[in-house]
Amino acid sequence: MDSNSSANFDLLFDPQTIAVFGSVKSNKIAHQLITQLSGGGYPGSILAVNPKGERPEGFPAIPGFPQVEALPHRPDLALICVPERFVAEVLESCGQAGVPFAVVFTSGFSESGNTEQELRLKAAAERHGLRLIGPNCAGIMDTRSALFASIEVRALPGKTAFITQSGAVGGAVLALAESRGIGFSKFISYGNRVDIGEVELLDYLVTDPATEVIALYLESLQNGRELLRTIARVSLSKPVIIIKAGRSRSGLRAAGSHTGSMAGSDEIFAAMIRQSGAIRVAGIEQMLDLCDGFSNLPPMRGARIAVVTNSGGPGILASDRAEELGLEVRESEKALKDQLKDFLPEHCAFTNPIDLTVEGTREGYRRTLEAVLDSEYDAAIVINVATPFLDSSDLACGIAEASAGRKHPKPVAAVFMAGAIVERGIETLKRNGIPAFPTGERAAAVLSGMHTYTRARRILSGRTILPNTNRGGAVAPAHGPVLEPEVLSFLEPLGFTFPQHRFIIEEDQIPEATAELAYPLVMKVVSPQILHKSDVGGVLLNLEDEQHVRRGFTDMAGRFADREFHGAMLYTQVREGLEIIAGIKQDPTFGPVVLVGAGGVLTELLQDSALRIAPFDVREAEDMISELRVARLLSGYRGAPALDRRALVDLLLRLSDLAARYPSIRELDFNPVFVQPRGVKIADARIILKER
Amino acid sequence: MDSNSSANFDLLFDPQTIAVFGSVKSNKIAHQLITQLSGGGYPGSILAVNPKGERPEGFPAIPGFPQVEALPHRPDLALICVPERFVAEVLESCGQAGVPFAVVFTSGFSESGNTEQELRLKAAAERHGLRLIGPNCAGIMDTRSALFASIEVRALPGKTAFITQSGAVGGAVLALAESRGIGFSKFISYGNRVDIGEVELLDYLVTDPATEVIALYLESLQNGRELLRTIARVSLSKPVIIIKAGRSRSGLRAAGSHTGSMAGSDEIFAAMIRQSGAIRVAGIEQMLDLCDGFSNLPPMRGARIAVVTNSGGPGILASDRAEELGLEVRESEKALKDQLKDFLPEHCAFTNPIDLTVEGTREGYRRTLEAVLDSEYDAAIVINVATPFLDSSDLACGIAEASAGRKHPKPVAAVFMAGAIVERGIETLKRNGIPAFPTGERAAAVLSGMHTYTRARRILSGRTILPNTNRGGAVAPAHGPVLEPEVLSFLEPLGFTFPQHRFIIEEDQIPEATAELAYPLVMKVVSPQILHKSDVGGVLLNLEDEQHVRRGFTDMAGRFADREFHGAMLYTQVREGLEIIAGIKQDPTFGPVVLVGAGGVLTELLQDSALRIAPFDVREAEDMISELRVARLLSGYRGAPALDRRALVDLLLRLSDLAARYPSIRELDFNPVFVQPRGVKIADARIILKER
Repeated sequence: MDSNSSANFDLLFDPQTIAVFGSVKSNKIAHQLITQLSGGGYPGSILAVNPKGERPEGFPAIPGFPQVEALPHRPDLALICVPERFVAEVLESCGQAGVPFAVVFTSGFSESGNTEQELRLKAAAERHGLRLIGPNCAGIMDTRSALFASIEVRALPGKTAFITQSGAVGGAVLALAESRGIGFSKFISYGNRVDIGEVELLDYLVTDPATEVIALYLESLQNGRELLRTIARVSLSKPVIIIKAGRSRSGLRAAGSHTGSMAGSDEIFAAMIRQSGAIRVAGIEQMLDLCDGFSNLPPMRGARIAVVTNSGGPGILASDRAEELGLEVRESEKALKDQLKDFLPEHCAFTNPIDLTVEGTREGYRRTLEAVLDSEYDAAIVINVATPFLDSSDLACGIAEASAGRKHPKPVAAVFMAGAIVERGIETLKRNGIPAFPTGERAAAVLSGMHTYTRARRILSGRTILPNTNRGGAVAPAHGPVLEPEVLSFLEPLGFTFPQHRFIIEEDQIPEATAELAYPLVMKVVSPQILHKSDVGGVLLNLEDEQHVRRGFTDMAGRFADREFHGAMLYTQVREGLEIIAGIKQDPTFGPVVLVGAGGVLTELLQDSALRIAPFDVREAEDMISELRVARLLSGYRGAPALDRRALVDLLLRLSDLAARYPSIRELDFNPVFVQPRGVKIADARIILKER
Repeated sequence: MDSNSSANFDLLFDPQTIAVFGSVKSNKIAHQLITQLSGGGYPGSILAVNPKGERPEGFPAIPGFPQVEALPHRPDLALICVPERFVAEVLESCGQAGVPFAVVFTSGFSESGNTEQELRLKAAAERHGLRLIGPNCAGIMDTRSALFASIEVRALPGKTAFITQSGAVGGAVLALAESRGIGFSKFISYGNRVDIGEVELLDYLVTDPATEVIALYLESLQNGRELLRTIARVSLSKPVIIIKAGRSRSGLRAAGSHTGSMAGSDEIFAAMIRQSGAIRVAGIEQMLDLCDGFSNLPPMRGARIAVVTNSGGPGILASDRAEELGLEVRESEKALKDQLKDFLPEHCAFTNPIDLTVEGTREGYRRTLEAVLDSEYDAAIVINVATPFLDSSDLACGIAEASAGRKHPKPVAAVFMAGAIVERGIETLKRNGIPAFPTGERAAAVLSGMHTYTRARRILSGRTILPNTNRGGAVAPAHGPVLEPEVLSFLEPLGFTFPQHRFIIEEDQIPEATAELAYPLVMKVVSPQILHKSDVGGVLLNLEDEQHVRRGFTDMAGRFADREFHGAMLYTQVREGLEIIAGIKQDPTFGPVVLVGAGGVLTELLQDSALRIAPFDVREAEDMISELRVARLLSGYRGAPALDRRALVDLLLRLSDLAARYPSIRELDFNPVFVQPRGVKIADARIILKER
């Protein structure tokens, strides 16, 4: 897909005629689909297609036809629920008839190992330019065009488009959303994704006027780099909320087995999230909470929130969670406190949380919230804990009054607790466009997610994510591991800095070489047969004079005589600076990624590393470094001199560029790199090229 | 309270007669309480007490009296809702009349700064031996005796006793629980805790036959050490689930302001949780989930769980979360797979998650779950994602059949998704005693919490938590900071090991002193006026010979002549080993705590430390060390020699003993301690005694 000309899916979501393929007996899927379409008020015409041309039971107005050729006119959308062995054939006939879109519900393809049949579907669709959703999917919905082409619970109208790889997760989300009164603009379950996938859908939805928020459930990825680029583009105008399943070993195993494609490493996915501006959530409850927040609330402009409550405990729990998630729950400033004291009883708490106590009234909530929204805070969580003897609906009105019709709206997230006794109050809130969450902790998570998005969007604007890079020439004629002298002569001209060094192939060169190098020296064997040099005594440290060097060289030449001994590298030994590691890896989904982390003994102790998908810009390189805990040591820790952070940033940018320009590099490791008060020194470099 | 003779609260929870004090007009709390008591079917007699002796409106059978002296007989329980200024008086009269228990609902005491009045309540109660709940509380309930002395939603019957400091959290939990069909044995909101608090209640509930699970919401603590001892004792027979609010700065601020007592540091509370065997949860939804699990399921015997599902996505999300929480979601063993293949269709997934696919039937669920429960797994999560066209109730029956009447029951947590379409199925599950959770992630959290408890109980059995220790003599006649020579002569006989050292007060002693010490040496000034020696040049390192030592001493003597120069300590300089820090602090709530952590540059970089409330045993000391990330360096990291872990354990035990025996030590710091291949060496020790 060319990302600059996105596909037009208007007819897919607003078809005039739908043909439903499959048995229309009353317990069959095609029949259930027709029930859903009719029940949802689909205004176009529905045609049933099945071998006997039967009409669906109970729907006398819907005609039946034996095959697509017999239809009175060309349908815009084919819904296909025929047994697996007939799907390709049906697609072929649809293609021939010029049907532009098809949704294949039938399962039994790549998810159960049947890749061959799936390829036949793909071929049929491609042959005729028919665009395909599925197979093995739960269908699509569009609440604006009253299209409910799915057997899942019919979505209520709303502003969120929900794209899901798993039909079951789709169904569960729709059912849960219905019970909470949360709606959707569109629903797309795309199953095995032989054709249309998340990237094209995102690209289409960014222009969909009915959609303001996009939620995405993913197990595997189609094209990681394209997804990153697309989300970064979409995030400029609409938030993208993502659940990525398959974080654990067992989760990966299951994701692998049931959609036929292996999920990528979660660390790299996390890097994608950071680079793209997406908001990641762990589960479907959080996802729905956030959809509700984004759909109903104005943007968070900053991190400062106020908690207005009629009871201490729930206010504290909300504050605890909010701070944990990076929001600020600062004490009210004097001006606000003074204002509150004018109308609130003395026994109330005027700090933040602001506690109206159990005696909080409609008027109290209204005036307090008005004062809070006029003050320094960027958003408010309003909590009401009811008893069976308290009319919550009245308090809800006070809250609605305060947040309605403001010139500079700020998010107000309500928490009415709990159960049956606040149902009326929550209805009042919803009618007034104020989302209500089950607990203050969940409201805090929503505001935090919204704040994450605000920051991400600010950072993304004006940046190009994964710009196209000119490809360099091949690194070297070799494949597999590259010898150290070659590594150096490749990398040094590209601006990578190493300690002083000389390559010697015979003893005679030693006097001249050592004359140019500052002692002490390090000697490393050069041999295509020796990959892990230090394991076999192929690295000598602390060589203090020429005699030591000679002795070391003769010894190596002897010991490695039968292992293609090419000679040895001599380096000035680096002893000062902060040890870090840096490198490049190739990810099957995301392509080249750059890594930086704590080096030396800290590597495994801290598990302190940062990843980014390459190429990236200076800001991203700086972010990577800030992510590291060892970054604190750069600024001169406990009297040590400050180290050259800029040189480290520069190293990462060079790595990013290298990774993008030389796809033939399968792996590159700098371990360790010494960050010094001036500059960095790469003490060991290793490159492995792709197999030819 | 003496922890060996717990108070008897039987009459509090099962009173024959209740007197309700306060206005009985229809919108007043006393009236609401009477409404609740009657509505809940309270079988005893209710008497109303108010100045005019009015009967409550709408309750013609309940008599009114003007004062306690006028009552026909002594009530077992007084419920007091009179205005704040009359509470002490009412309590006094109740006390004189021999009323054994009172619950004070009225607020306006220490929570709003009115400590004086609160002390009057306390005094009145103590004078007459009247036991008191409150003030500022939401009352109590006992579902077995049909006592609903609270204006919150009436609890359904159940096995969990819920103790809460915050009445509002109590109310929210009760309302949320009702909507989920989760019940309670008892409910106790104890508010400002002038008398009865969490420790005594826990102590009583451990013997309560109606209670199998205890849930506790805390903001501040009464007596941290007693709480730790009590929970450890209770946990041997009943799980204790705790929410501790006030983890954040704003949360602490609010907790401080609204119950009048400051919450302790969260790190120390976390240590209490670990030492006591309690299970900590972050919020009320998790708490209810766990109550539901513990109340209905047999214990988790191990960490291995199976996920049985009819849909991939939700199964993966459950597995991801389960592994994240430390459960094992291992692939099924061959025997189980073979068994499943006998009756499940080929397209199902037989690994773990076990996926029956959307075609999963009642029979399929039953036989799969039976096989799983007979296999190596310790528990199962069973997921069903429904569509509006699927009868979940039938599947629920299959699940119930499989888990019913087993010889060796294992926990089965169900997840039926979602909303209205699975309501009937969930009812069927509940009728059969199988708890249902909204998502697989939440079911995983429940099983993980239950597994945490199993492990904790195993560890606790046979141990004594916070044993009583003999107190040592006073450390030194001084108060405040202690001079280094005194520190050493106090600590060395107690088995703490230091590098070789000598205290010199004049230059003449140098030859003799240095003859006994191995070079290089460290010299530290000794002066009561110099606390931070290295900041003023009071520490000299790397003294290589006698001449250096002499020069250093003369120099110090000169520089510090006007600052009470007592002399200098000479030490053999320690250069080898892993640097750690260790020490003792006094916590206002928990008393002496011992700390160990990464030393040197790693201290602030890693924030890697472990705390325990002292005294503790060898197992706890070992746990502390295992908690540290630097612990990995003890076992000989990257070719370095293994270090003396036992000596570090020994050091912690000595600190634990010291902390318990010498409460006059306000602070003790060993920084750094070098853990060496043989033994540990304390390179710097500092003690600060309490002010007299």
